[in-house]
Amino acid sequence: MGSPSSGWRRSPTSSTEESEEAMRGAVLFGPRDVRFEERDAPKIIEPTDAVIRLSASCICGSDLWPYRGISTTTAPTPMGHEYCGIVEDVGRAVTLIKPGQFVIGSFFASDNTCPHCRAGYQTSCAHRQPVIGAQAPVLRVPLADGTLVATREVPSSDRIPSLLAASDVLGTGWFAADAANVKPGATVVVVGDGAVGLLAVLAAKQMCAERIVAMSRHAARQKLAREFGATDIVTERGEAGMARIKELTRGVGAEAVLECVGTPEAMQQAIGCARPGGYVSYVGVPHGVELDAQKLFFRHVHLHGGPAPVRRYLPELIDLIWSRKIDPGKVFDLTLPLENVAEGYRAMDERRAIKTLLRL
Amino acid sequence: MGSPSSGWRRSPTSSTEESEEAMRGAVLFGPRDVRFEERDAPKIIEPTDAVIRLSASCICGSDLWPYRGISTTTAPTPMGHEYCGIVEDVGRAVTLIKPGQFVIGSFFASDNTCPHCRAGYQTSCAHRQPVIGAQAPVLRVPLADGTLVATREVPSSDRIPSLLAASDVLGTGWFAADAANVKPGATVVVVGDGAVGLLAVLAAKQMCAERIVAMSRHAARQKLAREFGATDIVTERGEAGMARIKELTRGVGAEAVLECVGTPEAMQQAIGCARPGGYVSYVGVPHGVELDAQKLFFRHVHLHGGPAPVRRYLPELIDLIWSRKIDPGKVFDLTLPLENVAEGYRAMDERRAIKTLLRL
Repeated sequence: MGSPSSGWRRSPTSSTEESEEAMRGAVLFGPRDVRFEERDAPKIIEPTDAVIRLSASCICGSDLWPYRGISTTTAPTPMGHEYCGIVEDVGRAVTLIKPGQFVIGSFFASDNTCPHCRAGYQTSCAHRQPVIGAQAPVLRVPLADGTLVATREVPSSDRIPSLLAASDVLGTGWFAADAANVKPGATVVVVGDGAVGLLAVLAAKQMCAERIVAMSRHAARQKLAREFGATDIVTERGEAGMARIKELTRGVGAEAVLECVGTPEAMQQAIGCARPGGYVSYVGVPHGVELDAQKLFFRHVHLHGGPAPVRRYLPELIDLIWSRKIDPGKVFDLTLPLENVAEGYRAMDERRAIKTLLRL
Repeated sequence: MGSPSSGWRRSPTSSTEESEEAMRGAVLFGPRDVRFEERDAPKIIEPTDAVIRLSASCICGSDLWPYRGISTTTAPTPMGHEYCGIVEDVGRAVTLIKPGQFVIGSFFASDNTCPHCRAGYQTSCAHRQPVIGAQAPVLRVPLADGTLVATREVPSSDRIPSLLAASDVLGTGWFAADAANVKPGATVVVVGDGAVGLLAVLAAKQMCAERIVAMSRHAARQKLAREFGATDIVTERGEAGMARIKELTRGVGAEAVLECVGTPEAMQQAIGCARPGGYVSYVGVPHGVELDAQKLFFRHVHLHGGPAPVRRYLPELIDLIWSRKIDPGKVFDLTLPLENVAEGYRAMDERRAIKTLLRL
């Protein structure tokens, strides 16, 4: 997901108050300057809040936008929006979520009752709020009843990475496949070999696509794409990439193209790989992407995307993980203690790691 | 439809040849300069061609783009791409269409057998060719077997306007509704009150939309929109128009918005009227429309459009007209003899007429 704009905000209670506890978490101070800093411990502010103790945290590809200075950071910003863990406390208006439950939520808190939520677009919830500061031991989650999904019991630790992946990258890859109308037998192209792109491959496989082409030129990512279900790897990009997809589809183009990057090049490549009447989804926040409607018109593509409504898919994804039908946690190829979060960012920035898990 | 770029081209046989006949038809010489000029009579060129004697012709809203000089006309261009009439002659490779049949076709000739045609996108046919010069008594139609649909018998003259409308504006309005996923019970907004917009209202009604809002500030068009099934009229445009749609939908926005104009203002208005997760279709060739993908992303809309694959819908539309369930011919509010074609253009340009029928 993108970087919901929000500054570094201290809890409204005074830091001299007796109940105030401190903790340390990741804070972005400016381009490539992430620090493991002391912050006030989150607590219930609104009656609909929950506070959860995280079982693990991680770094998202979208965290790299502000990290690289492409999205502007105006004030020190607590980082992280992917989370799962044990509920410690809930506000007085919370009725469904209970302390002690293991829960997973998405990067936007949502009430799950407004017309947009009921239509399955919880990330456009009329009352949505970004969840901020999950690269830390404790997190405040607004609108807890609408946002959080509890598992049937506290999971064994080997399931934690996959459940954490469900919080964003799996749900986002799933939305990419769903928004591109992936159907049994389809030919699917995935643009982008980050965690979201790789999990979009997994999603397409679960949706019974027949042919899944991963566009990647990175050996480790190609390997994981194949493990997740890719049948073909295309290393070419741009015009050459589109030509290769045409060749693989006997001149027709792909029914479904999943754009999991957010750059102009990736979007053009995605549109160029689709067959007329085909579907292009886009799930990475577009940065500097302008679309010429006349070109789009004559390409005849369907276009749909946005911040993935992960909440819509969470119950299904949790079931698939619980029954060990999918193992999205494989995208974590680097594990570090939370205090080494800065190294986690560097490794992803330099593409040495696909995704960093932060141990608590 | 838009103006397929094609210059004024004489038939390849010499004009001194004995068989050469002349006829007169509409030719655009430059901005606002349409003339009723002598041209070679069309004849079979390719073995897959048919030549048809038109029962009536008409002027399309999209003819106004080159007429107004917004699309450049580099050479005198025969005008017109909407047609129905009696087959006079077919090439030796034509097997389905027979002389004497009454036929209707679309503005792009298509083979109806390539993968794009089979997927219902005949206007992206691998062998598509524009049909040009239909504002004339006789017309050459390429790929006759794939392009033309014959009626069960020669229709009575009162059905001709509606059958002619099926050739483009009805099929285009129908695609607008289909591409915007109009379903029974839906709330639909139609942006644009030209013939296509009005017939998009008719299409939405046929698809059992519950509420159909026509955005129009023109009394005669509002009246026809109501006849075709509009339940509400909104006269406001831009921000005020979007606010009015929000108000009418209790703050939610419309499930389906049909953009039937092709300008940046109309497209922005359409996107702004859709609910998150809603559908926006666009069926007028976009002129100068740039879309900011990040804005589109956070609006969560589905976007689909293109040159309407009218051929996909023709059999169904002909049936509806034949059984008098729909009367799309009502969009013709001015009838002129073909030789007065220039006045027909002027009347539409000045919005004195919705659509001009040209009598032959």
